[in-house]
Amino acid sequence: MRFGFPRWTRKQDPSARAAKERLQVLLAHERAGGPGPDVFPELQRDILAVIKRHMKIDDDAVDIQMERGEGQSSLEINIELPAARG
Amino acid sequence: MRFGFPRWTRKQDPSARAAKERLQVLLAHERAGGPGPDVFPELQRDILAVIKRHMKIDDDAVDIQMERGEGQSSLEINIELPAARG
Repeated sequence: MRFGFPRWTRKQDPSARAAKERLQVLLAHERAGGPGPDVFPELQRDILAVIKRHMKIDDDAVDIQMERGEGQSSLEINIELPAARG
Repeated sequence: MRFGFPRWTRKQDPSARAAKERLQVLLAHERAGGPGPDVFPELQRDILAVIKRHMKIDDDAVDIQMERGEGQSSLEINIELPAARG
């Protein structure tokens, strides 16, 4: 797998990077024909709802970044999960 | 946004890279406390169902790769979408 969590440390102070559980979701939509219907807001809402069905997440531990370009849009969801144990 | 579509060209011959529309979904789950319940199969099924609600996708144009490690699992879904216009 080519990607991981390089960006976590960017927003985390050293102590916050200790025993954490994290989920990162990245979406990239490339439209060869230029702009089209923007489905990312609905995808974001529904994907978060799916994640909440399977994992316990606090809304204030969810960081969302969306970028829209001419032919490419991207969505990044970073979620810090309550540590499963101890 | 740090990621895009570097991997598309790896599986595509030059002619296939012409006017295409693509969606890429990447999930990475880091568990500090080591292995725990594996929710990726359900996340994969439900996220694909969400995408199908918002975008027309052909099942045979969906490529899925899942990797499970000691403390990190990752899921990559690459979808070639029927080009929106002509």
